[in-house]
Amino acid sequence: MSLEIPESLVISSDPLHPANLIPELCRTFYHLGWVTGTGGGICIRLDDKVYIAPSGVQKERIHPSHIFVLPYPQAFPNADRVFLRRPALDLKESACTPLFWNSFDLRGAGSCIHTHSQNAVMATLLWPGPVFTISHQEMIKGVRIGGVGAAMSYLDTLEVPIIENTPHEEDLRESMAEAMKKYPDAAAVLVRRHGVYVWGLDWQRAKTQTECLDYLFEVGVKMKLAGLQTVL
Amino acid sequence: MSLEIPESLVISSDPLHPANLIPELCRTFYHLGWVTGTGGGICIRLDDKVYIAPSGVQKERIHPSHIFVLPYPQAFPNADRVFLRRPALDLKESACTPLFWNSFDLRGAGSCIHTHSQNAVMATLLWPGPVFTISHQEMIKGVRIGGVGAAMSYLDTLEVPIIENTPHEEDLRESMAEAMKKYPDAAAVLVRRHGVYVWGLDWQRAKTQTECLDYLFEVGVKMKLAGLQTVL
Amino acid sequence: MSLEIPESLVISSDPLHPANLIPELCRTFYHLGWVTGTGGGICIRLDDKVYIAPSGVQKERIHPSHIFVLPYPQAFPNADRVFLRRPALDLKESACTPLFWNSFDLRGAGSCIHTHSQNAVMATLLWPGPVFTISHQEMIKGVRIGGVGAAMSYLDTLEVPIIENTPHEEDLRESMAEAMKKYPDAAAVLVRRHGVYVWGLDWQRAKTQTECLDYLFEVGVKMKLAGLQTVL
Amino acid sequence: MSLEIPESLVISSDPLHPANLIPELCRTFYHLGWVTGTGGGICIRLDDKVYIAPSGVQKERIHPSHIFVLPYPQAFPNADRVFLRRPALDLKESACTPLFWNSFDLRGAGSCIHTHSQNAVMATLLWPGPVFTISHQEMIKGVRIGGVGAAMSYLDTLEVPIIENTPHEEDLRESMAEAMKKYPDAAAVLVRRHGVYVWGLDWQRAKTQTECLDYLFEVGVKMKLAGLQTVL
Repeated sequence: MSLEIPESLVISSDPLHPANLIPELCRTFYHLGWVTGTGGGICIRLDDKVYIAPSGVQKERIHPSHIFVLPYPQAFPNADRVFLRRPALDLKESACTPLFWNSFDLRGAGSCIHTHSQNAVMATLLWPGPVFTISHQEMIKGVRIGGVGAAMSYLDTLEVPIIENTPHEEDLRESMAEAMKKYPDAAAVLVRRHGVYVWGLDWQRAKTQTECLDYLFEVGVKMKLAGLQTVL
Repeated sequence: MSLEIPESLVISSDPLHPANLIPELCRTFYHLGWVTGTGGGICIRLDDKVYIAPSGVQKERIHPSHIFVLPYPQAFPNADRVFLRRPALDLKESACTPLFWNSFDLRGAGSCIHTHSQNAVMATLLWPGPVFTISHQEMIKGVRIGGVGAAMSYLDTLEVPIIENTPHEEDLRESMAEAMKKYPDAAAVLVRRHGVYVWGLDWQRAKTQTECLDYLFEVGVKMKLAGLQTVL
Repeated sequence: MSLEIPESLVISSDPLHPANLIPELCRTFYHLGWVTGTGGGICIRLDDKVYIAPSGVQKERIHPSHIFVLPYPQAFPNADRVFLRRPALDLKESACTPLFWNSFDLRGAGSCIHTHSQNAVMATLLWPGPVFTISHQEMIKGVRIGGVGAAMSYLDTLEVPIIENTPHEEDLRESMAEAMKKYPDAAAVLVRRHGVYVWGLDWQRAKTQTECLDYLFEVGVKMKLAGLQTVL
Repeated sequence: MSLEIPESLVISSDPLHPANLIPELCRTFYHLGWVTGTGGGICIRLDDKVYIAPSGVQKERIHPSHIFVLPYPQAFPNADRVFLRRPALDLKESACTPLFWNSFDLRGAGSCIHTHSQNAVMATLLWPGPVFTISHQEMIKGVRIGGVGAAMSYLDTLEVPIIENTPHEEDLRESMAEAMKKYPDAAAVLVRRHGVYVWGLDWQRAKTQTECLDYLFEVGVKMKLAGLQTVL
């Protein structure tokens, strides 16, 4: 048995350790326009530990020492949040936490990414109903059923539910959970006028699915504006 | 008591010293298309000293030795400009200086950023009246009331006053000040066919608010061109 | 006679060795939006060896040790695929392999690039027929007749055949080959709702032709959306 | 008197030496989409020597050893081209050379940049007449009268002549010269369906003017497509 010192949770020489990966991925996402203005975020779960970027900071300037570590499982939001490690600095925990938890509890995800990509927001504006749909696009094959299952086929129609935004991010928890249950095959949930939550079994698959979905939102928006049908 | 040698004002091994930060931030802003063609600028105020990038130079190639340092407070434009430190090179002081001063004098800002972003310019063209408005966008929450107060709510409508451009940048001082007084909750002032001035309590908040506002100008322009209402 | 150890096929200190070039080029293509979400790929043939990036991985994170090496010539898809070297990791061979082979067998190409560029996909949507055409653009001069012959002239009309997508990438082999035979001067084949295959005598010419064609797809789409004629 | 060895013309530890600057600037221009597919180019003249990037190569991969050096003055195109230094590699001299010479002979420029920017090409398509015009844009102030004189005012209307493209780049020499004489205040010449030539007294001013003009082409195209008047 070893007495674990919390700081050791975020210090590693392995570039693929979550505490090193999260800052690197956030820099990449910043340059994609997904997490500017302190928006967006990412979490990575490894077994019973969840690593989360802090809230309200410049996402391209995060250091490993800024990472929060929480135990999994843990109930939200009825229980007070428990931390295995908090940054020494006066950083706020991510308001996305209960939403990230939805992806763990309802899908068994290992990582969840939240972006404010303009492609996602424009999709929610041009699809005023409860779901974004597109079919017959090769990039659909990069998305998995439910986000964690088998890869979709080129012949499948992609459906991403859209929930309405709320003033406080935490208050999206229930409507996001409902949408995930109503659309069990959905790999993501769009939030109207806000952005998107995408998950996967690990950070690689959460990231590549976020890329595929963002591509599909972008091409879908272009098609809609060009007067083309997005579902055949 | 120490005799301060002006050069020491811009020499520091701390990457977060204003003389090091300004060149780094200008490089970032260049790649965002905000300060190309020598346009745009940034200043950082620390207590009684103001650090400003020079005018008329390639903003992505600024070195710490190019930075001007002025004392604060200091009246503009009635008094001759006083410098604590001028670059040895034949560099021009920024024409934005009196406008940056507006943000210090009228809002108590600690940093002000000026961009020529095309999103800002297009917003001033598609909103021909005296104010840009948008509502129900998550990114509004990244903007603070008056630029230096509490964070705006998702339920607040963002208003950014638009002033008319003048042949000489200095001549914007009064109309910018008037707009800031008429719109005390505004976090920025747009200049028609020119760009935007955004401020914050420190460089981090000036930068992240510039990102949020630029995002909102961009999405607003896209919505307007797509025939969507930007205020509900 | 030397006993070649497979690992030596992908270990070189020469940055221009295919095993080093492929990861570098994939990073470049990722930042151009050509190979996000694990999509797209590239192969380089040197004499009797073909180097190919693996399938289903983040293309911007490939290492030389991930590269597959196949012998050339080799029949597809009737024969089982033969490898000179496979990665130790559990990586999948590229589904593009039979399509890359088309460029070797039918054109004598030395390199072939596959992108999911949105410019290519939008071109296939706005040109609903079997061929994309554009004329009177300087960038046409950067494309070679058949992809491997003499440079096209400014006075030539560029034609790129468009084939219909299939659920499995391998199944594009025959329709791609037919299109290449029907359009012997074509330097590329577009795949509707999917992307494009571009080849050249070596990686430099495959890459620069991919850039020229992507530029022409992009400007063609812009012209079409602006109501301009793309062929004079 | 020293016997100058040609190689020394392109070997320098000074990052601002033309042989080092040209590769660096070409990389920057590549990432701006100005010189992809081997298109575009740049030359820098220092006193009686002109440094030029080679033709037909990937512009983002140029090395100092690839640079051509020519003496100035030198007549084009009646005389055979004279070189002070040619690359050892089998590289082609730039077809832009006689056009760059126009900027030296007719304007006394010290540097000239040629881009294939899509903003320039789209401007030549949406302005079908012989000149692109825009007024009341702050970025006009970054352009100099004739490219080498005093800075333009916000109240000036920018005019950039547009010449028709020819199958061989060298054949643009006379029509470019005529346009420069007919529009003595023009800082650049657009080539329809091709790109733009921009010059300045030195590389800094050629580059920043290229950025300002590209910005103005881009915003002009956006305005035209949005149904806005570009000249008040």
